[in-house]
Amino acid sequence: MADFCVVLVEPKYDGNVGAVARAMKNFGLRELLLVKPCQIGEEARRRAMHGLDVLESARTFDNLDKAIKDADMVVGTTGIDTKSEKKFLRIPITPREFAEKAKDAGGHFAILFGREDFGLLNGELRKCDLLVTIPTNPRYPILNVAQAAVIVFYELFQKPGKSRGRQASAMEKERLHDAFASLLAATKYPSHKLERTEVMFRRMLGRAAPSKWEFHALMGVLNRATNRIARLESSQRMKMSR
Amino acid sequence: MADFCVVLVEPKYDGNVGAVARAMKNFGLRELLLVKPCQIGEEARRRAMHGLDVLESARTFDNLDKAIKDADMVVGTTGIDTKSEKKFLRIPITPREFAEKAKDAGGHFAILFGREDFGLLNGELRKCDLLVTIPTNPRYPILNVAQAAVIVFYELFQKPGKSRGRQASAMEKERLHDAFASLLAATKYPSHKLERTEVMFRRMLGRAAPSKWEFHALMGVLNRATNRIARLESSQRMKMSR
Repeated sequence: MADFCVVLVEPKYDGNVGAVARAMKNFGLRELLLVKPCQIGEEARRRAMHGLDVLESARTFDNLDKAIKDADMVVGTTGIDTKSEKKFLRIPITPREFAEKAKDAGGHFAILFGREDFGLLNGELRKCDLLVTIPTNPRYPILNVAQAAVIVFYELFQKPGKSRGRQASAMEKERLHDAFASLLAATKYPSHKLERTEVMFRRMLGRAAPSKWEFHALMGVLNRATNRIARLESSQRMKMSR
Repeated sequence: MADFCVVLVEPKYDGNVGAVARAMKNFGLRELLLVKPCQIGEEARRRAMHGLDVLESARTFDNLDKAIKDADMVVGTTGIDTKSEKKFLRIPITPREFAEKAKDAGGHFAILFGREDFGLLNGELRKCDLLVTIPTNPRYPILNVAQAAVIVFYELFQKPGKSRGRQASAMEKERLHDAFASLLAATKYPSHKLERTEVMFRRMLGRAAPSKWEFHALMGVLNRATNRIARLESSQRMKMSR
């Protein structure tokens, strides 16, 4: 698995530096490098919140080369610049593609974010092994640097697989379908509509992807309804047979 | 294709409101609603940058219900709160899963972001059809509200897919919730479990995003069960009173 450092090149507003430090902490990143930064003051500390340790352990460099000398991969971030003649410098991938690549890779990645106004300069872009651009509305593609950073960090943090706790198993879902079918039968559901209604329920459950807890709660409701009908019917039959 | 409005509930720092307006502009969103916001001043305008038009056309409401009254789907955003006893309120999906669902859906979505300190309150979460949580480092899961917002907007902006036919409207979904509540009552569902089971059903439906056809089919099943119980009970009463 790759590891990452974050390099801010000549940030002009210390509030942005603080916001980046916070976002790093939110997504488990620790190493912040600053190249010729503005004065880091109260606003940076205020916006860093619990990322203050990241901010305070940031290292400062007087040029980019020193900051990236240990990096195996240098990754630039840039807004789309269609006016640039140096197009070969600006063939980017998306943050998602970058995250995919980084997952498969090893080594030490340096992720560069440029100045609030001019971004990364061409000389800096030339040093990059990869260029990442966030797809945005072309009418206003320029993200705040801390906003761009949080999106890249977010993508790097995504793990394949589960998000929502334990899902109901296939067997549990089958029991739910059976319970639904029993309720349909108890209500004397019209037989010509049975199949499509059962399929409807299966598809909806498939999309809803119930958790184990939701599975049990829904089973409870369906079974209660079916059992209540059955009990009322049987007491009716008993009375009629008297 | 769905359309989206962004609802900030009681934001405390106008800088965050400005940052959200800018992020909206970056990702092609326009409609910003503010519920009991702080004073919107210079800091908001400064951070909005070219999103100033979004900020200036924001509408203000004195309560959440008024802000969401036209929404077909209400989407809450929340940090993970593992200490919460009200776990049933907090079964979330990821922003990516949300974006996938929204792509398939039609209608008007309201996306809620809560206070900087307390997020959305339980009473507000109960109104939500979907709950979105951004996967973060559990050691510091609390994102700045504008950072959380930009991630959700970014996910929504990624390429749209095909629509899955007409979705049930907000009013239809409310009728379905009422029908579910009536069935629970008919089965004499334990009152201490009523609320969480109703919220469970709301969330599952929110995730399943039923079509109009599915809405009608499910209404049919719930009403049949409720009516069958009512009819059996009434005939039992008639017999007993003879």
